[in-house]
Amino acid sequence: MIDCDIHPQIGDVDMFLDYVEPGQREWFRAQGVELGLPGYLWSHPVSWFREDIERRDGRPPGSTVEDVRLDLLDGRSVDLGVLNADEPITLSLMTSPYRAAALARAHNDWLRERWLDAEPRLRAAILCPAQDAEAAAAEIHRVAADERFVHVLLCGGAERPYGDPRYLPIFEAAVECGLPVAIHSGGEGMGIAAPPGGAGPPTFYVEWHTLGSAGSIMAHLVSLLCHGVFERFPSLKVLLLEGGVAWLPGILWRLDTNWRGLRAETPWLERKPSEVASEHVRFTTQPLEHTDRRDELLFEMLEAAGAPSILCFASDYPHWDSDDPEFMLKRLPAEWRDPVLHANAAAFYGERLGLVRA
Amino acid sequence: MIDCDIHPQIGDVDMFLDYVEPGQREWFRAQGVELGLPGYLWSHPVSWFREDIERRDGRPPGSTVEDVRLDLLDGRSVDLGVLNADEPITLSLMTSPYRAAALARAHNDWLRERWLDAEPRLRAAILCPAQDAEAAAAEIHRVAADERFVHVLLCGGAERPYGDPRYLPIFEAAVECGLPVAIHSGGEGMGIAAPPGGAGPPTFYVEWHTLGSAGSIMAHLVSLLCHGVFERFPSLKVLLLEGGVAWLPGILWRLDTNWRGLRAETPWLERKPSEVASEHVRFTTQPLEHTDRRDELLFEMLEAAGAPSILCFASDYPHWDSDDPEFMLKRLPAEWRDPVLHANAAAFYGERLGLVRA
Repeated sequence: MIDCDIHPQIGDVDMFLDYVEPGQREWFRAQGVELGLPGYLWSHPVSWFREDIERRDGRPPGSTVEDVRLDLLDGRSVDLGVLNADEPITLSLMTSPYRAAALARAHNDWLRERWLDAEPRLRAAILCPAQDAEAAAAEIHRVAADERFVHVLLCGGAERPYGDPRYLPIFEAAVECGLPVAIHSGGEGMGIAAPPGGAGPPTFYVEWHTLGSAGSIMAHLVSLLCHGVFERFPSLKVLLLEGGVAWLPGILWRLDTNWRGLRAETPWLERKPSEVASEHVRFTTQPLEHTDRRDELLFEMLEAAGAPSILCFASDYPHWDSDDPEFMLKRLPAEWRDPVLHANAAAFYGERLGLVRA
Repeated sequence: MIDCDIHPQIGDVDMFLDYVEPGQREWFRAQGVELGLPGYLWSHPVSWFREDIERRDGRPPGSTVEDVRLDLLDGRSVDLGVLNADEPITLSLMTSPYRAAALARAHNDWLRERWLDAEPRLRAAILCPAQDAEAAAAEIHRVAADERFVHVLLCGGAERPYGDPRYLPIFEAAVECGLPVAIHSGGEGMGIAAPPGGAGPPTFYVEWHTLGSAGSIMAHLVSLLCHGVFERFPSLKVLLLEGGVAWLPGILWRLDTNWRGLRAETPWLERKPSEVASEHVRFTTQPLEHTDRRDELLFEMLEAAGAPSILCFASDYPHWDSDDPEFMLKRLPAEWRDPVLHANAAAFYGERLGLVRA
């Protein structure tokens, strides 16, 4: 089983700061555990982390490689997992692109030395400062030589949807390095990001978790398709994380219909957007919508959008709503299990994953 | 057949300006045909209006009562139609609530004298300046005495989602007058409205038409449910127009799940949000998503969200993508036809509609 979304926590901030370049280190140290990242608009009413896992040394689960081994890898179902930055993903929303670039470099080096070197079953995402696309491209090229980094990571929250030309250097660098681009929900409305939800900032965390996280993923998907980014980079692959999937058939139907009716606006799109999406875009399962006993309907809806081949398993460990791999194994239709839990991610990442299946 | 969404055009601006109070009239006259309303971020690449209808006197279709008779009422399937403001719906996004209030008053009086008095098969929406909720409530009370006004109209684009307490006087006034509140997509990102889509302003009209219009409707739905506006006003009914419906089961599944997992944040919600929605909220059909020959799946999805009882027919005449009533009659499952085309709207508006069915 391949887990496309594990979030390593910066349990030991002092140790992390050792990876920040000396000229910037004191500024970051002065920011405390928040590291100068933009603040959240909402708080989880109970806990951001799984409460069923005992805290080791008082730190949240996922703070060490040992945590990930105990909770996901050893004697459990996950054979290989991809580490995606947790809160530092919002560095692309910092007002200063220079601080953001320094933090991205530190995070990538910290992941390499403290996580990838320690555990051969882990892979990682390259963090980059999206608000300065040229600097982001430089960081992608710097880190990509290490093949344990398997995708570039962008934040759901953004100033503009990612089809905008300002972001092209990021996609170009990813393609040059043979890397997919992963966009993970979160950060909507934080720092320099636009507010989530389409009608101004929502009031509650529950609203953000229902719509804000899904809405940015929808926006980036539609934007990438409309700008023709996949026509420009035919080998580009994109993974959309943690925005849910039950909305997908409806949004693709809308987009296909509008593409047909409004061809004059985007004449460079010669194929139906849903077809382009099914070739280039993959989605992670968590959170795979709970359906009040209508799972059969959900799976039929997802088939209309190209499932099972578009879905890849993700646990979202160690967050409060993470999906248990064993539970997912039971929930999926039998014929979806191998593609969703393993084969789709293996094909998506290709040789870079370094995976020889037993 | 009841058509819940017909858009009267201000074909004759000079005549319309006669309805603006004298002290404000010259300011509005100086703004030309735009009437000082906030500007669009995107243009339709061909035409905002149906191109298959011949222009009478060079004006867009829907500019006169006679247009509506010819194109919808006489010898066609529509027996009764509700007029919703077209571009003036964005007056709630003007920087000045005073100009907005004056324009709302003029629009309501113009509708009454020029449309309702001329055609007994028409009903209308009360326009009000949502950016000044007390002024909006006053306008609702002023106009509601005329029972041909059958709902209060709010704009999809907004500073904040409509569950926010600043908007309570509007919902309170509507309930006091026995009127439902209708929220119609449009205006997202215009004037003082927040940008659409959750990741900053999209580039193309096709993106807005795919996501922006749906996203604001999703946001208002989730916001009204989370703030407990229906618990506060048990007789409140809300109609959501032109945001599509295929996304609905997915969003309700997400909201129900999050409500269960995050009860501590909104403890005033004692019932599953989807249940509350099915009692208080209705949706119009246009645009009923085109599905690439998967209509059966769409109808099954909508049943999971409470259809057919939650759906009311709307043509969106005279816009470019309006739905032909005869086509809708053919497309719906046989047992949906009466509820969607007539009975749901009749029950929603109740006695106010003044409809005695033949």
